Amino acid sequence: MSEALQRLREFAKQVLKCVEKDEPVRIPKRTTSNIRYDPEREIFTLGPDKLERRPRTLKGSKKLAQMLSVAAFAKELVEKGRSATLREIYYTSEGWEVDFKDQRESDAIVEDLEATLGLKREEFGVWPEEDGAAVYGDLLVREDGVEIHAERAGISGYNIPPNVDAVEILDCGAERVIAVETMGMYRRLVQERAHEKLNALIVGLKGQAARATRRLLRRLNEELGLPVYVFTDGDPYGWHIYMVIRSGSAKAAHLNEELACPDAKFIGVTATDIVEYDLPTEPLKKTDYKRIEELRRDPRYYDPFWKKELDLLEKLGKKAEQQAFAKYSLDYVVKEYLPAKLDELE
Amino acid sequence: MSEALQRLREFAKQVLKCVEKDEPVRIPKRTTSNIRYDPEREIFTLGPDKLERRPRTLKGSKKLAQMLSVAAFAKELVEKGRSATLREIYYTSEGWEVDFKDQRESDAIVEDLEATLGLKREEFGVWPEEDGAAVYGDLLVREDGVEIHAERAGISGYNIPPNVDAVEILDCGAERVIAVETMGMYRRLVQERAHEKLNALIVGLKGQAARATRRLLRRLNEELGLPVYVFTDGDPYGWHIYMVIRSGSAKAAHLNEELACPDAKFIGVTATDIVEYDLPTEPLKKTDYKRIEELRRDPRYYDPFWKKELDLLEKLGKKAEQQAFAKYSLDYVVKEYLPAKLDELE
Repeated sequence: MSEALQRLREFAKQVLKCVEKDEPVRIPKRTTSNIRYDPEREIFTLGPDKLERRPRTLKGSKKLAQMLSVAAFAKELVEKGRSATLREIYYTSEGWEVDFKDQRESDAIVEDLEATLGLKREEFGVWPEEDGAAVYGDLLVREDGVEIHAERAGISGYNIPPNVDAVEILDCGAERVIAVETMGMYRRLVQERAHEKLNALIVGLKGQAARATRRLLRRLNEELGLPVYVFTDGDPYGWHIYMVIRSGSAKAAHLNEELACPDAKFIGVTATDIVEYDLPTEPLKKTDYKRIEELRRDPRYYDPFWKKELDLLEKLGKKAEQQAFAKYSLDYVVKEYLPAKLDELE
Repeated sequence: MSEALQRLREFAKQVLKCVEKDEPVRIPKRTTSNIRYDPEREIFTLGPDKLERRPRTLKGSKKLAQMLSVAAFAKELVEKGRSATLREIYYTSEGWEVDFKDQRESDAIVEDLEATLGLKREEFGVWPEEDGAAVYGDLLVREDGVEIHAERAGISGYNIPPNVDAVEILDCGAERVIAVETMGMYRRLVQERAHEKLNALIVGLKGQAARATRRLLRRLNEELGLPVYVFTDGDPYGWHIYMVIRSGSAKAAHLNEELACPDAKFIGVTATDIVEYDLPTEPLKKTDYKRIEELRRDPRYYDPFWKKELDLLEKLGKKAEQQAFAKYSLDYVVKEYLPAKLDELE
């Protein structure tokens, strides 16, 4: 029996026992008061607090019925090797005996189930709508019995599927991973053959990284021992893309142990780069200044490197995109910028 | 020599001749006054009006210098088999002798060049940042010497590349194409094996279809004679996704002859479906009502089918997503809805 089926079954048994004995079912509390920052491992995790769902109260029984309905649906998905999106679960629930006020309510139950089972929802058949990122380079994987090489799947590369834990990594000739924020830069690196010149797997994040992408980066780092570098725009949103890859998001605190990649290194664009490379810039907007303030209050940005960069960015009043290196030539980023940065960091 | 190189060369010669004789260079006018709706072919096209760029006026010489600079850069891209994004062209222009006020100005010059050369910008190396859509099903293509089968590229399918005209279609066992608005529905159809059960290529549009996707749909329709069906959400934005596939956008009037797919058929979700299938709905928002009004004024929505659907949607005051069929079961859309619709249309 799969891990997911086993845990779903255990959960159901536990609920049954609690109902028989009229004892509360205890599930991990996911509210802010129970989210801790672990400065040593540099990730957010859930604390020890539990919610109690009492089977003989109105609210408790409703929440338990909702959780069991979603769990039963998940069991069906896992048994049939199927998946459904959060949206589809909400629509499907229209045919169930318990109901949900709106999709937010059913989404929250799915997250409760994740925290309770200690599984990512992708592992019990609940998938996101969107694709994960794309990978290009010397990587051979097996997906559902089919071997796929990330340089022979077309110029767009290999699309990371939502259930990336089910993907077997068969072979990899690269020595490092370079993950980039925009697909514009992804295509640039592929076209300049950065995967060969820098001996790297190139990952195109498409903005804030999807969970599947973060999980793959973690697996590449952990299973293959590859260093992971993150290359973003030179602005507070780009920097936070890196930070979420490294240490997870507060919202997914119950999953960060599997998603976070604490070894990931930031490779730019820094505020210092904007000055040193004399990059084309745009003025910071109000929302950028606000974001800088928010990041300053986040413990992950307390270290001197980020303090200095946040201060300098604010002082410059400007930000730069990663594509701005095209000012010098299209291949500048692969010939000059990235090699210089890798030298610095390795 | 490639078609693109030849046309770039002819354009340069023509400018040279005009400069020598002090005659204006005439380029197609792309403003609203010159965009025509062709009711017979049901597409927007450019009319016969031309702009005159006089080489010895301040404005004319600047615009011609900008066009020649972009053309020279395009020539380099084509010769080297490279590409650049619109954003990269703007940044690259920082190193040129002519300058652009902002990216809008350089983008407009690229569109002038498209209209003047009669080529899509992808054909002279200017690519969009984002991927096109994904395809799943019995389709074998050759891209850059590599054969790719759309059922053996991973569960996310084959990613349509920006330069889709360079892709060779080698073999296709499907009898029709079903293009769907959301990736949620795309995954649903792939998972329910709609490609086998409905003998179709499944195309995931990711919202409004990219140019490369529209070009591929057109090629599948024209070269392989496959009927194309478009399946969107039941709201004015979804309907317009279909309309742009069928008849092109006004903005790209100079390219619609190659991008539009006038044979494409709309397969739902209609307002009538919302009633007949008793779908879960959401109330129309202000922007939806406004959009309904805009579509009513668009000549492509004059026909009785659309008039009736727009009226009904407004009267219902509600819209439905294509995933709403999950109310009945995850496979309802493949087992019931789509077969019924295909029967009706074929």
